[in-house]
Amino acid sequence: MADRIASDTSDSAPLLVVGSVAFDNVITPFGEKEHILGGAASYCSFAASYYTQVRMVGVIGNDFGEEHLNRLRSRDIDLEGVQRDESGPTFFWKGKYHENFNRRDTLDIQLNVFENFRPDLPESYKDSEFVLLGNIHPALQMHVLDQLPGNPFVLADTIDLWIEVERDALLALIKKVSLFVINDTEAEELTGESNVILAGKKLREMGPESVIVKKGEHGAILFHEDGMFAIPAFPVTDLRDPTGAGDSFAGALIGRLASRNRYDFSAIKEAMIYATCTASLTVEAFGCDRLESAGSATIKERAKSLLGLISPN
Amino acid sequence: MADRIASDTSDSAPLLVVGSVAFDNVITPFGEKEHILGGAASYCSFAASYYTQVRMVGVIGNDFGEEHLNRLRSRDIDLEGVQRDESGPTFFWKGKYHENFNRRDTLDIQLNVFENFRPDLPESYKDSEFVLLGNIHPALQMHVLDQLPGNPFVLADTIDLWIEVERDALLALIKKVSLFVINDTEAEELTGESNVILAGKKLREMGPESVIVKKGEHGAILFHEDGMFAIPAFPVTDLRDPTGAGDSFAGALIGRLASRNRYDFSAIKEAMIYATCTASLTVEAFGCDRLESAGSATIKERAKSLLGLISPN
Repeated sequence: MADRIASDTSDSAPLLVVGSVAFDNVITPFGEKEHILGGAASYCSFAASYYTQVRMVGVIGNDFGEEHLNRLRSRDIDLEGVQRDESGPTFFWKGKYHENFNRRDTLDIQLNVFENFRPDLPESYKDSEFVLLGNIHPALQMHVLDQLPGNPFVLADTIDLWIEVERDALLALIKKVSLFVINDTEAEELTGESNVILAGKKLREMGPESVIVKKGEHGAILFHEDGMFAIPAFPVTDLRDPTGAGDSFAGALIGRLASRNRYDFSAIKEAMIYATCTASLTVEAFGCDRLESAGSATIKERAKSLLGLISPN
Repeated sequence: MADRIASDTSDSAPLLVVGSVAFDNVITPFGEKEHILGGAASYCSFAASYYTQVRMVGVIGNDFGEEHLNRLRSRDIDLEGVQRDESGPTFFWKGKYHENFNRRDTLDIQLNVFENFRPDLPESYKDSEFVLLGNIHPALQMHVLDQLPGNPFVLADTIDLWIEVERDALLALIKKVSLFVINDTEAEELTGESNVILAGKKLREMGPESVIVKKGEHGAILFHEDGMFAIPAFPVTDLRDPTGAGDSFAGALIGRLASRNRYDFSAIKEAMIYATCTASLTVEAFGCDRLESAGSATIKERAKSLLGLISPN
């Protein structure tokens, strides 16, 4: 069994993760890496695997070697839901971050086998009570929910593209979501509200029980029926590649909730501590490297340190 | 005696505040106000007056009417150190904030009597053990320190202008400062470090015991020998005029420290809670209006609410 952070309850639940699997070429002020494992499902799964059993759903192409599958397997991630499509290569993304990482340009996208991806769930996944819908097309996110007979706790993430071109489908989806996670610029785009507090409140009125607005280096804010919670980012001084930070945050967040089988206000706040620390590892190296290798002891140390950083006493 | 927030100690100390007194014309997306009371010393003094006895030092011109002095007096602010210069009008600033308040342009500055201002202290102020040096020329800030025979706790603020044109004088000053308060863009300008954590650490190496980097709507971070403390902004949804927010933060911060006669790590953290809440009032109306009238009960309510916002439990 993979190295995990112990839960304080005995009834840990597995977590269903659905999203893209990709190969990325990433250019940052610190260098360039080619054909590295990426995609929301990869980051989410690695992050969540520190907390609970992950059931992963995605599609890989004919260029996806055993070495990458073994990386996921070594974190005890269940790959039954990962479909292999031999008709072409894996989804490919190339992006470049500019000085200070405050802007990134997409230089190339090749959907490849992702173009015909349909997230059909294995039978064994259909009892999942915790579900992470990574930022794929909202109709595909909805298709996942339609296959789940129960009443799972659902975290959904999105990206600006869907706000722009699939707004109605996205609005229909978020009505069914337990916890909607979105970054601040997307929150403004979706609500028309530049004030992050007002934007978060408007998003909750759109249906989800809770909303988390991510502010990158400035942390995140939770909007919940029982109140708000603001958390700073972990004080990273060695930023290398921000790709996957948001996915790692989401994965660790719901992974921690699933491991405790709880999703009340207090549980979500506690999970945000772990999510913040887990995401901080991702950005310290290219791709999934640091996230994958950091180990649960490092995450626990960071969580302790973050609690100190926010303690007013 | 003015409405104040009670200290938990019996040995409250008075606070010396030195800075500009001004009349401002402010243009925001919500309207325009002319000839309103402003300047760092005014905001700092109003804010600090909720916590302790303020001794104010500044210069006013021949256009400064009793009605403005009475506003300060009604907050029990000691005006012995306020010099009247009949040779001309009070310092004047005109500025315009743009949509979303993320940029402001200075449209006019008339130094007037401020041009010849020399902050000579009344004898009765020279025993001050808590000193706030508002963002005036660093040589004038140093002149204030030179008149204080003791070893006071000194908070200094600055602005980008002095970083650009009086860097050496500023560096000499901050070596003598207990707590240096600066915003994030100025911190980058002064240290060359875009990462706020590294910038804060570099600033501490320049001499001050503690540093607070202010991040506007994203809160503030304290760098202290005993650790760091990150605090979000108070969730303001009704932003009207950000002028004076930083000055109010500084005034309330050291006002609270003076009222408790403490400046250890824990005391500075506690004071940042009050400073954040006091500054949040300032931005909800033009000029000093809301800050001046809000009352200590409102600040105490906000402090309680802010503690809830950051509580991970």
